[in-house]
This record gives sequence, structure tokens and C-alpha cells, in this order.
Amino acid sequence: MATDAQQACFEAGIKFGSLYHQFAGTPVSPRSTRSLETAIAESIENQPFCESVTVAIDDDAVAADIDHENGYTELSGHLLEVDMRIAYDGVTVSTRMEMEDGYPLMKLVEVVETDD
Amino acid sequence: MATDAQQACFEAGIKFGSLYHQFAGTPVSPRSTRSLETAIAESIENQPFCESVTVAIDDDAVAADIDHENGYTELSGHLLEVDMRIAYDGVTVSTRMEMEDGYPLMKLVEVVETDD
Amino acid sequence: MATDAQQACFEAGIKFGSLYHQFAGTPVSPRSTRSLETAIAESIENQPFCESVTVAIDDDAVAADIDHENGYTELSGHLLEVDMRIAYDGVTVSTRMEMEDGYPLMKLVEVVETDD
Amino acid sequence: MATDAQQACFEAGIKFGSLYHQFAGTPVSPRSTRSLETAIAESIENQPFCESVTVAIDDDAVAADIDHENGYTELSGHLLEVDMRIAYDGVTVSTRMEMEDGYPLMKLVEVVETDD
Repeated sequence: MATDAQQACFEAGIKFGSLYHQFAGTPVSPRSTRSLETAIAESIENQPFCESVTVAIDDDAVAADIDHENGYTELSGHLLEVDMRIAYDGVTVSTRMEMEDGYPLMKLVEVVETDD
Repeated sequence: MATDAQQACFEAGIKFGSLYHQFAGTPVSPRSTRSLETAIAESIENQPFCESVTVAIDDDAVAADIDHENGYTELSGHLLEVDMRIAYDGVTVSTRMEMEDGYPLMKLVEVVETDD
Repeated sequence: MATDAQQACFEAGIKFGSLYHQFAGTPVSPRSTRSLETAIAESIENQPFCESVTVAIDDDAVAADIDHENGYTELSGHLLEVDMRIAYDGVTVSTRMEMEDGYPLMKLVEVVETDD
Repeated sequence: MATDAQQACFEAGIKFGSLYHQFAGTPVSPRSTRSLETAIAESIENQPFCESVTVAIDDDAVAADIDHENGYTELSGHLLEVDMRIAYDGVTVSTRMEMEDGYPLMKLVEVVETDD
């Protein structure tokens, strides 16, 4: 009923929602950004049709977000950028999460039918 | 670049991934299923383009899942069914999550272009 | 090895960490605060030794936190106050989470040995 | 009001509840266990009074838990063991999470007053 391209976009959305709501709230400091980036990427790459995930947590933004004595903050949208590529039955979808107007916007960058 | 229908499917996927990974792991018992259903639905309906969310947690499955003294279990895919309707720029997407072969499958039920 | 009072305090801490990290990040708006409060309280009350949980999400703070077009924000520590009572083997522990210096502080209010 | 030892046990509980409810539900496969262990440990070590966290995810249990085509499962209590040491104002608390009777039990191993 849905086209392969629509299905690919649905799958891409699932990965983004999963990534964000699994890991938002994780305690993070400049000492732990690299291990968290790696774990997020490798975790979401387990999901079906997920070819690659790249996560970049902004160390400077994390440091700036620490406004109390404890030396850490919680992961949230304004601290990270994510690129993801989903491949579903001959369609490749490139997606990206980045801040836009103070809101972590998840967006479709490109939908390519590679198969015909 | 993406069509409105593809964008609508992407949005639908985001909601499903969000719902699942925000609430999976929540302590649940037959005493607390109704309040959790309502909170999940009303929470996800806040997200953009989300017209309606219906969540049904299976009381019998919850009861059967309680295999220890403490009288509760953790919410996971085999305990709930979800129906969702997303409306994006003239396209309505109906989606559903239910168990298939032991895996909580999220799927596109219908993509309808209501606007032209 | 640990005393009953220490054990009771350990149990109280578990509930607080669970509550916060299960529900932080949940989409919330003034339309959905009541259902979320109820679901959080009933969910955590399922956990062992947990006598009562009261959750208050601040509608005005939620409204003030919405700074983008989408009309919702994510649940985090500065939006809620929690009171909890834990009873473990003759010891009752009262705990509270509230903001202190911009950080959601979880604290022991009272440890009472009711049994002797 | 509470003793330092009680406060230390409360802090230990917070870390355990946080760890479990932040990371339960994370997609995991034998390919991603090491990065997830590291990220969980480094993340929770950011929290106040947390001296060390060791996380061991059982690769064989993860592999056994994968019962569908997709090649991954979700992190839950029966897949991991955690040891943690909390130091609060002259008291050191050792804690451990492991399975007991099918339930991921978090327990106090030792409470030592190191300071006097």
C-alpha cells in the first residue's frame, strides 16, 4: 500500500525518534561525550534498515550547559547533531537532526531510489 | 526534495520511535495500565502533525508477565498496541504497532493524500 | 550488613533515579500535565517498598518553557516536584525532589524507625 | 537529619535507578555491547558522589535473547551486571545489581565509614 520510498522514510523516522527518546536525559560531561556518541551510533545501527549513524555531541555546548556544581548536564537536542542513512528495498534515505530556532529538528535530507 | 507523503511517513515514524523508547521500561501492573495508556497517548499527541494516538495495554499480558514477588513488570512491546494518525500538509498517514513473530512491529497502514 | 534504615534509604534513592530517568524527556504541554502526573505516580508506586508518590508538574513553568512553534516542551527537573514515602521493614523514609540552584535536587526529608 | 551513611545509601540508590531506567530498552547486539558498557559507566560516573561504575553486558545472554530476524534485542536487567562505589562524606557504599529469581535485584553490598 505504501511505496518503498514512503516505507523508507517511515523507517528513518522510527530511528530518529528512538535515538532521541532513548538517550535524552543521559548524564553527560566533556569527559564522557566520545563514549556516548559511539554507544548511541552503534546502538541505533542495530535497528532494521539502518546503514549508518553518526553522532556528534558538542563539547563546548556541553561545557556551557553545566551551570551547577556537579559538573555534568543531561543530553538534549541542542547538544547533538545526528546524520543517518537508511536503506529500504532499493531506496536510500539521508536524514539529519540539528537545531533550528531552538528546537531539535529532524529532517529528510534526500530520498534516492537506487534500484530500478 | 521529499514529497509531502514521504515527509508524512517520516513524521509518523518519529512518533513511533519516540513513544516506544520513552516509555519502554516503565514499571506497570494491572493497577496502573489505564493511567499509563492515557499519559502515553496525550504525551505523543503533543508532537507536531500528530492528530491522534490510541494506546491499549493488555492487562492479561501484563499479569502474565509478572513472574516475581514484586507484583509488577516493565512495559515492553508485547504488552501494548498503538494506533496513530499523522496529518502533514494534505497527507494523512495511519500507523499501527502490534506484535508479529515476537517482535513489536511498527507499520504503515494507509497513506492518503486528502488534498489536491 | 546494612541497617534497615540504610536499606530503606537505598530503596528511596532507587525510586527517585527511576522516576527521573524514565520520564525525563517526555513531551509535555499544559494539556497533558495531569495525565502525566498520574501515570508517573502510579507507575513508581508499583516498585517494592514504595508507599506513596505525589508528582506535581508546574503548568506555568511548562508554558514558560515552550519557546518554539510546536506547543510543547520536554519534561525535566525544573518542571516538577515529587514527594515520596518508602517503607522498609519498620523504617519510613520521606523524600522530596525540588529545584535548588538550578539543579533538581533529590533529598531525604526524614528517616523514621516506626518499629521496635 | 539523616546520617551520612543513610545519605550515602540514598545516593547509591539514585545512581542505580538512573542507570537502569535511562538505558533499559536500548537496542543491543553482540556487536555493540562493549560501547554500551563504556557509555553507561562513564555516564553514571558523572553523577555526584559516584566514584566508580563497572558494567558487564553478557554477550551470550544477548545472543540468546535475539529471537527474531532483526539481529538485536533490548537491554534489560537479565543481560547486565553492575558494580558501583559511592563515596559520601566519609562513607563508602558498595552496591551491585544482578539477577535473583528472575528479577534484576539492586543491593547494598557494604557500607563502610572510612572517616572518623
